[in-house]
Amino acid sequence: MIQRPRGTRDFGPAEMSRRRKVEEAMREICHRFGFGEVVTPTFEQSELFTLRSGQSIIDEMYVFKDKGDREMALRPEITASVIRFFVSEMSNQPKPLKLYYVGNCFRYENPQSGRYREFFQLGAELIGSENPETDAEVISLAVHCIRASGLQDFHVRVGHIGVMKSLVLREVQDPVVAGKVLRMVDKEDFDAMGDMFDANSLSRNLFDRITTLADTRGGTEILDSVDDAEAQQYLKELFEILKLQGVEDVELDLGIVRGLDYYTGMVFEIDAPKLGAEKQILGGGSYTLSELFGGEAVFSTGFAIGIDRVMLALEAEQEQPEYTPLDAYVVPTEDAMRKYAFAITSKIRSKGLRADVDLMRRSMSKNLKYAASAGARFAVIVGKEEMAKRSVTLRDMKSGEQTLVPADFVADELEKLLSKG
Amino acid sequence: MIQRPRGTRDFGPAEMSRRRKVEEAMREICHRFGFGEVVTPTFEQSELFTLRSGQSIIDEMYVFKDKGDREMALRPEITASVIRFFVSEMSNQPKPLKLYYVGNCFRYENPQSGRYREFFQLGAELIGSENPETDAEVISLAVHCIRASGLQDFHVRVGHIGVMKSLVLREVQDPVVAGKVLRMVDKEDFDAMGDMFDANSLSRNLFDRITTLADTRGGTEILDSVDDAEAQQYLKELFEILKLQGVEDVELDLGIVRGLDYYTGMVFEIDAPKLGAEKQILGGGSYTLSELFGGEAVFSTGFAIGIDRVMLALEAEQEQPEYTPLDAYVVPTEDAMRKYAFAITSKIRSKGLRADVDLMRRSMSKNLKYAASAGARFAVIVGKEEMAKRSVTLRDMKSGEQTLVPADFVADELEKLLSKG
Repeated sequence: MIQRPRGTRDFGPAEMSRRRKVEEAMREICHRFGFGEVVTPTFEQSELFTLRSGQSIIDEMYVFKDKGDREMALRPEITASVIRFFVSEMSNQPKPLKLYYVGNCFRYENPQSGRYREFFQLGAELIGSENPETDAEVISLAVHCIRASGLQDFHVRVGHIGVMKSLVLREVQDPVVAGKVLRMVDKEDFDAMGDMFDANSLSRNLFDRITTLADTRGGTEILDSVDDAEAQQYLKELFEILKLQGVEDVELDLGIVRGLDYYTGMVFEIDAPKLGAEKQILGGGSYTLSELFGGEAVFSTGFAIGIDRVMLALEAEQEQPEYTPLDAYVVPTEDAMRKYAFAITSKIRSKGLRADVDLMRRSMSKNLKYAASAGARFAVIVGKEEMAKRSVTLRDMKSGEQTLVPADFVADELEKLLSKG
Repeated sequence: MIQRPRGTRDFGPAEMSRRRKVEEAMREICHRFGFGEVVTPTFEQSELFTLRSGQSIIDEMYVFKDKGDREMALRPEITASVIRFFVSEMSNQPKPLKLYYVGNCFRYENPQSGRYREFFQLGAELIGSENPETDAEVISLAVHCIRASGLQDFHVRVGHIGVMKSLVLREVQDPVVAGKVLRMVDKEDFDAMGDMFDANSLSRNLFDRITTLADTRGGTEILDSVDDAEAQQYLKELFEILKLQGVEDVELDLGIVRGLDYYTGMVFEIDAPKLGAEKQILGGGSYTLSELFGGEAVFSTGFAIGIDRVMLALEAEQEQPEYTPLDAYVVPTEDAMRKYAFAITSKIRSKGLRADVDLMRRSMSKNLKYAASAGARFAVIVGKEEMAKRSVTLRDMKSGEQTLVPADFVADELEKLLSKG
């Protein structure tokens, strides 16, 4: 038997129905916020991703040569592609551009629980604007997307990497050492940082201030303790605008220090605590990237949601809704009734209802069994005596109740019954 | 500047809006017909595709080795993956299974007009049933999907490869020669077939019967000329059921003879004549594939729609609808009004309308210009004097008409105006 590739998944109808509902709800939110969808190629020149993330990402990508001997990679993320698209075709459009995407990405690593070699992201990029209201708009979009998925228990944290950066650059004279310190903070490797502080005779007091800052979380009141006046003012405005947008449950977290080389100011994350150790379902912040790809430098703010993690979090939180893919399953009682059954099925479908019909020439009892296993809400029984009176029997597959209805009105009758639940 | 890979495309918001509408309409039809969505990995073991299509497909695929040194390929089609999924995880489910997919496929060839290295398909597979009503169900689904896309001018042709197969196998004694004849018919290479007929002293009369059959098209009346009684009866029933499903404009075409090794009986195609030489937008038929992948032999019927071709056909046929992504664009008249603008934007969005707000701190006149270029239907002007009366001004961006409305009812007022068009 041919196997599916390791670390990839097949999704069946019940799961796809749940995933599409979440995706649709998030898309709808993106449109409400004035974001338009873009789709970019599934593979790109490898260089696009190494320019953004450094050479080391090569080992985590699926790489291959194309016929022109150019090195291509299956995309590990979609932001780089969106910015490439912006640089080559949209840079003359009025700013800001509000773009979102939904797509699959690829990670070439040993599969672990909750991490797959092909995974799904929904993300957004707001390009060409830099101020607190821009960042607030993106955070608000992110929070509304997660709300729309139906997830109840999630936690939004917003920080600003400028605070940590300015502290380290101000207090550590040697810029090479300062760079090393920031990288260690980024990796949260405070043991190694302690050793380096000792080796370079940096003060224990500075060490404590850095680790304290990395641990600083709370409401906007903690801003009073921030030295960086610019970041302080920026975050105050940002939180004020978030409030006006109805986004209030947000923690200020000055300890978000990942991606120091990449992000330029505001950074934010959303966690789903029910997921345990791998709880992050969204990450984002403000950045510049276009100049790396040959365009002019343009400020952007964006985020990406890990759809797979959101689905896991939803599963952990709520009972999975029953999958009822059919409103009606049409059953002819004998061979001579089959043609009527097709016509009636067609009539039900033309009203927008989801209907199926026996294609296996099964017996009546086997058909009713199939209707139940296929998740049909009603069976429509097309029998000889009933059809003589131009009628059919509707059978409620939950209660077993049966009613005779005129064949011409079967779709209307079903609609009526379905609206009752 | 980093280029997009050759033969691939970027899709912007206006085009994605059109594509998603078509995709959504087709999905909705699939659900009405009781088909459930599946998603399979973007790459598979190469063997999956060579088993179905022969070794020669290797040259047309993007192939790479994974960390376990297994040869993988970006999928050139999705049917093979769906059947692999069926064999490994769904073969014990009650038959028939009705599955559909929407996804991207990859073709490693020199780019030509209308053919891309990454292209999009929507397809369906009905697995586990073999009879005229099964084939009719799949053809009917296909026709309803194309109708739902909005395409007006398309042409459905249905054939049966059994007719040609039985003629050739009956009249050509040597099975090796018969196989060669069928492959030439498949390729429509009648010159080479003539030469081979001469070399093997086959009758000119048989040659004429074969080419005549390959040219036979029309209504069900042409069935009377068909020798193969089984296929004749099968197609009669099939056309009768199609009619009951409201699918009447179907041509019988005994000349559809492609994929003779693969299809087992009914074959069908849909063309969009406006596309010229590359006019086929859909192909399908009945086949067995599961036994090749290690499962038991199961009859299936399926089709795949070339979404890119459908989009081209729609473009050729109708004016592209205007892209109006925003119901409202909110404009503060001065800095002090910005916060009200955010709150009002949030209120409009919470009603499900698509609203954007100035994030660039533009002047009033520049904002109105931006609102026009961004495709906003209305501008909502938040001014100091109006807000003192808890009101805002709605400006119709088409007519220029302005009305003062209470700030608390701005969303309701917009809904009312939008419903008027």
